[in-house]
Amino acid sequence: MKRRSAGAPAAIGKLVVIGVGLIGGSFALALKKAKAVRHVVGVGRSRRNLAAALRLGVIDEAGTDAARAVRDADFVLLAMPVGQMAEVMACIAPHLPAHAVVTDCGSTKQDVIAHARRFLAAHLPRFVPAHPIAGTEKSGAAAAFAGLFRNRNVIITPQPETSAPALRLVRAAWRQCGARLVRLEAAEHDAIFAAVSHLPHVLAFTLVNALARHPDAGALLGFSGGGLRDTVRIAGSSPEMWSDICVANREALLAALDEFEDELGRTRAAIENGDSAGLVRMFEHARRVRAKWLQRD
Amino acid sequence: MKRRSAGAPAAIGKLVVIGVGLIGGSFALALKKAKAVRHVVGVGRSRRNLAAALRLGVIDEAGTDAARAVRDADFVLLAMPVGQMAEVMACIAPHLPAHAVVTDCGSTKQDVIAHARRFLAAHLPRFVPAHPIAGTEKSGAAAAFAGLFRNRNVIITPQPETSAPALRLVRAAWRQCGARLVRLEAAEHDAIFAAVSHLPHVLAFTLVNALARHPDAGALLGFSGGGLRDTVRIAGSSPEMWSDICVANREALLAALDEFEDELGRTRAAIENGDSAGLVRMFEHARRVRAKWLQRD
Repeated sequence: MKRRSAGAPAAIGKLVVIGVGLIGGSFALALKKAKAVRHVVGVGRSRRNLAAALRLGVIDEAGTDAARAVRDADFVLLAMPVGQMAEVMACIAPHLPAHAVVTDCGSTKQDVIAHARRFLAAHLPRFVPAHPIAGTEKSGAAAAFAGLFRNRNVIITPQPETSAPALRLVRAAWRQCGARLVRLEAAEHDAIFAAVSHLPHVLAFTLVNALARHPDAGALLGFSGGGLRDTVRIAGSSPEMWSDICVANREALLAALDEFEDELGRTRAAIENGDSAGLVRMFEHARRVRAKWLQRD
Repeated sequence: MKRRSAGAPAAIGKLVVIGVGLIGGSFALALKKAKAVRHVVGVGRSRRNLAAALRLGVIDEAGTDAARAVRDADFVLLAMPVGQMAEVMACIAPHLPAHAVVTDCGSTKQDVIAHARRFLAAHLPRFVPAHPIAGTEKSGAAAAFAGLFRNRNVIITPQPETSAPALRLVRAAWRQCGARLVRLEAAEHDAIFAAVSHLPHVLAFTLVNALARHPDAGALLGFSGGGLRDTVRIAGSSPEMWSDICVANREALLAALDEFEDELGRTRAAIENGDSAGLVRMFEHARRVRAKWLQRD
């Protein structure tokens, strides 16, 4: 018998999506669109969100009991905020069929892997840690759409225990969503995303909160232009998801924050000193780096 | 004879735009489109930019000598970076016709007004300090377009000396561009824009520079998603213009930076302490403030 090639369609019977938000919902929609899944069960805490997911055809069946839902699952997607990983893993572990493949969408990888080693120990070969680099500032099933992952990177951080067939199935599923797969070490992943994703989110939330302290914050914000609007777009993101990420990736995030604060100290010193030439050099450097990056993108 | 109403079209014979960039060029294009100006002369330091402005029909005539250009001007728009205000004012002052109205587009108002008091003293009644709240991260005449100011605020900070007819003409011209006029005190203006505009620009430039220090910055940025891209869009803005603004509005900007750094300290402490509930509260607050602001907008 020939082995299925890496690019073959994923053929998933029953998919269980735990956390039917923007990411989990879009994964379900993309696989449905590709006819790569037969039946999708959504599990979540909010009945209202589950009802919306059912109504919009994101899922075919809804429930609030993860243990029950995974009993005859072929593929389980953990798409809740990372703060719930340990609890959900512990809850589903005794009920997972031996053949079921489990993967996650966590924005942090070292902590998710640590939880899997503890709570999914028996199932470790069929757990594939992953992180799709996609999203908008919107959340919930109603924000999901099939094209979310098209041409987006999905980072996979397989472990020595990860089995080849499980890895193949997860890769195939993401390819069906239109994503590109990138393999990284978990620690490398966490340091990179602390810098390019977690730090910018923290800065956006913080900037809005700093402005909100002004006595007449409403009027103040009314004067802003498109610059501020874009700069703080991601301050519309899910507070719970981002709180979880900040705590889960604390060390790497604090290192990225240190670097930012050092740089801010340099910018601030140039402003204090009225160092026009120094400021032009700094801003010109940033502009050049950004232009090169966008060009490559 | 009836007085011209505030909403009447501006009838400008010769308009001199000093600094034919995104703002100055768009002002010229908008007035041309409204048939509110007969002849536009562009003055600048870059022959290449002036040539582009001529070719694109932004201006009808180009020159590098501001003193010569203003000799028979009816309306002079100072649209260079604020760092050049003093020099240009000193240069044109002896050559301005008595009837000519002068206005500026400076992002800071107290320093521009101080320069005008010093270098345009004899012309003060016909100098109208203003600041259009519009722009993109692009710069230069080629980026100009007639619709840039449509439904945007233009802040006017008239002085006790400002004459009513000069104020009326400047207001009428901006209305022809589709802008809404807002009157503020200069100090109030500078504090507001330090917070909602100058601070976000400083943070965007600084964030890019912090990321650029990483050993493999190119690969790092390659992993980022749409969040970082939007957050640092304004780091593509003109380095010279923003260096000038930082220096000109130094005090208000440092105060806004203090407030941001205090807030960042609070966010950082919550991350260090693993205070999930505190982070959720902070991020939820930012999300609510942002949503309310966008709704009103």
